[in-house]
Amino acid sequence: LTPRNGAIEYLTRFLAASNQNKKPKLAKGTRDYHALQMAVREKAFKIIRNVFARHGAVTIDTPVFELKDTLMGKYGEDSKLIYELADQGGELLALRYDLTVPFARYLAMYNVGNIKRYHIGKVYRRDNPAMNKGRFREFYQCDFDIAGSYGLMIPDAETLKVMTEILDDLPIGNYCIKLNHRKLLDAMLDICGCPAAKFRPICSAIDKLDKEPWSKVKTEMVEEKGLPEAVADKIGKLVILKDEPRALMTKLKADAVFKGHKAGEQALQELNLLFDYFEAFGICGKISFDLSLARGLDYYTGVIFEAVLTDTNQVGSIAAGGRYDNLVGIFSNGKDIPAVGCSIGIERIFTIMEDRIKKQEVAAVRETETEVFVASVGGNLLSKRMALCSKLWSADIKAEYLYVDKPKMQRQLTHVLEAGIPIMIVIGEDEVAKGVVKVKDMSAKEEVEVPETALIEHVKTILKKYEC
Amino acid sequence: LTPRNGAIEYLTRFLAASNQNKKPKLAKGTRDYHALQMAVREKAFKIIRNVFARHGAVTIDTPVFELKDTLMGKYGEDSKLIYELADQGGELLALRYDLTVPFARYLAMYNVGNIKRYHIGKVYRRDNPAMNKGRFREFYQCDFDIAGSYGLMIPDAETLKVMTEILDDLPIGNYCIKLNHRKLLDAMLDICGCPAAKFRPICSAIDKLDKEPWSKVKTEMVEEKGLPEAVADKIGKLVILKDEPRALMTKLKADAVFKGHKAGEQALQELNLLFDYFEAFGICGKISFDLSLARGLDYYTGVIFEAVLTDTNQVGSIAAGGRYDNLVGIFSNGKDIPAVGCSIGIERIFTIMEDRIKKQEVAAVRETETEVFVASVGGNLLSKRMALCSKLWSADIKAEYLYVDKPKMQRQLTHVLEAGIPIMIVIGEDEVAKGVVKVKDMSAKEEVEVPETALIEHVKTILKKYEC
Repeated sequence: LTPRNGAIEYLTRFLAASNQNKKPKLAKGTRDYHALQMAVREKAFKIIRNVFARHGAVTIDTPVFELKDTLMGKYGEDSKLIYELADQGGELLALRYDLTVPFARYLAMYNVGNIKRYHIGKVYRRDNPAMNKGRFREFYQCDFDIAGSYGLMIPDAETLKVMTEILDDLPIGNYCIKLNHRKLLDAMLDICGCPAAKFRPICSAIDKLDKEPWSKVKTEMVEEKGLPEAVADKIGKLVILKDEPRALMTKLKADAVFKGHKAGEQALQELNLLFDYFEAFGICGKISFDLSLARGLDYYTGVIFEAVLTDTNQVGSIAAGGRYDNLVGIFSNGKDIPAVGCSIGIERIFTIMEDRIKKQEVAAVRETETEVFVASVGGNLLSKRMALCSKLWSADIKAEYLYVDKPKMQRQLTHVLEAGIPIMIVIGEDEVAKGVVKVKDMSAKEEVEVPETALIEHVKTILKKYEC
Repeated sequence: LTPRNGAIEYLTRFLAASNQNKKPKLAKGTRDYHALQMAVREKAFKIIRNVFARHGAVTIDTPVFELKDTLMGKYGEDSKLIYELADQGGELLALRYDLTVPFARYLAMYNVGNIKRYHIGKVYRRDNPAMNKGRFREFYQCDFDIAGSYGLMIPDAETLKVMTEILDDLPIGNYCIKLNHRKLLDAMLDICGCPAAKFRPICSAIDKLDKEPWSKVKTEMVEEKGLPEAVADKIGKLVILKDEPRALMTKLKADAVFKGHKAGEQALQELNLLFDYFEAFGICGKISFDLSLARGLDYYTGVIFEAVLTDTNQVGSIAAGGRYDNLVGIFSNGKDIPAVGCSIGIERIFTIMEDRIKKQEVAAVRETETEVFVASVGGNLLSKRMALCSKLWSADIKAEYLYVDKPKMQRQLTHVLEAGIPIMIVIGEDEVAKGVVKVKDMSAKEEVEVPETALIEHVKTILKKYEC
């Protein structure tokens, strides 16, 4: 060691030693879920899973890391946000960035002809976290996709129906689903005189219309992206159009906007069919046919959609999706499998649910599901409390007792109230001698003494009353 | 570029190009879960979660990656199995190796005084995978722990009760839980004349007794670890002792094995108390007090236990745990929080469940939960099928239909049979005109015609019949 090296070593040791006294930390952009947050999360997942299952979807799971090759070249510029694993000798690996590319890899790898699947899992992005807005580096995605060759627009209608049911069932308030068609959008740009090479960049400018005024978007089109002003103005007159599906359809036909444009007319025809199916499902009122909806991702090839909340000023979508008929081909030598799907913005939904619970707009959520608390007065009753709990557990009743020898009544009662446990059983030496237990229905504030042999039945009766 | 470099570049490009034609691959030691495997996995998780909830546990979640510092120095030699993330500028991160160290970090970070929590999550180890035996590089752990200062042996008894309920509820056959006490083990070694410095290495030799004969273990003790043969022989006479908790306790007292050894007598006293609680819980018959149980991990400080299946020849534990009173202190400047917990070997359980389903020893599992399939005969009934499904979905009934315009009856029936859907609804133009639907109860092979207005009620009646 040179003296210089010695100094560095000393410093390193010093820092390591002082580090021992620091509080442990989390990686940037990640979070722990505490018990109450988990209860909210589980509630949301339960609602979402139930809708997926209601529509006959299966679920699959893929690993959190994939070969780096699988992920690279799929996300354009965003590839820089992919977490890579260290090269520890072996394969080069990376954490998944979304659930869609692994799904495409899955379809190609097992040669899956058709599947209706959902997948709930964590994904990873080395993005700038904004944790108070629900933007993390580790976050959940909830995806539903229908892959396979089916009747025109039928899986698309089903996907939108699934999305409405989820948003209806979640306690997050009112919403609206904006809908458009990638081919209609391209036709619109074509008709206005936008060159085909500029379709995607101009789309990405249009995509900002939910956050920025037209004047600013126009400037981007003309000054940054070199679109003639007259073309931008024509686009400007169309992108403001939005209405109920049938109403806007009627207007577009009356104004002959797409008349004579083959791709445009075909897209309109497809949408017309889709709107028939919306009527069969009774969801027209939840959809806004909106010519300004563009969606950022390049891989969409048909219907695109995005849900926003209408009760709040917060911008941004809480669910979105579309048809992507050419993505699987990347993994299967061009053998495409048509697919349509949606993704639920579950982290934002958690935040909204937590907010609404805090504001008491929706019912509180409990950390545990405990139904019965077994309390005792006086000493030497620990084994009795254990035996009673055991009896309750055997009957699949969720029960708890305090893990101390002689618990004070105050401490037991506090636990019952804080945890919101609906039933409290109390025993003392008298009760044990008589072979009875006192059963308190906490919200009805009723207490009855029942024989120990009738305990299970009595508890079940009370629980049934609160089941709704 | 020198010619040599050019050649390498050419080769690289050639390999990359031919790689495009290869089937996509998974990272070594990882797997996709297909729909049926997921159904088995979800069934197991549901059973396990229900037991945790039945005992009033909350659940928490921690990130998949932690600061590298948090994980390093906690796993001894196994630290080399930790997956590190690439240094992409920023923090040094690593994938979690288990759920226990993140739990200890969690307790210290938020200064949690007591918590009864479960955590189900994926962990990562760069180990040699043996995937047919259920050993993966990405795999699930299901942990239950009680942290906090409570009455002696009460949380320990609860943890073992939880373990028995999970193993009883899972369809995996009969099992036995081996139990010992780290302090009793140390006392035993001490009494036999083993020097304290050799306690842990000798323990790790004893730990192999479930896979190797005594002669081999003795050789390891004497030749590798330098224990005098007489000491090894003394140990050999004790480690063969195992019996029902009370029976072995009586024998150890009668033989005065630990008499006069303070720590040994204290451990026996603790176990005696624990066995009282086993009696209150009625689980004595599931426990084998076994002096050969040592458990590999260094951090255990009290009771240790391990469950093995008794109907199969497969060795290895399917659940294990113990008390670790000094682990949290590492993260909180020595401020310890006593804790006891168990971990369920869920990947092995998945494998066992899949095997038993294949052998038809337990009931088959369905990929989907679909309750009703809506079929049609003839054409032009797509919207009607959609409307009927919509009605069923509104009543929270799980329903499906084929996503094609004019499905053939054969194709619809095949789907119903393959997916094991219990109810099939059939409509034709006649039925629609009359406002009725045909409802087929698939397993009863009964078909009735009911008015469309009575459909929901009728379907619910059939479903109720098949519940439970």
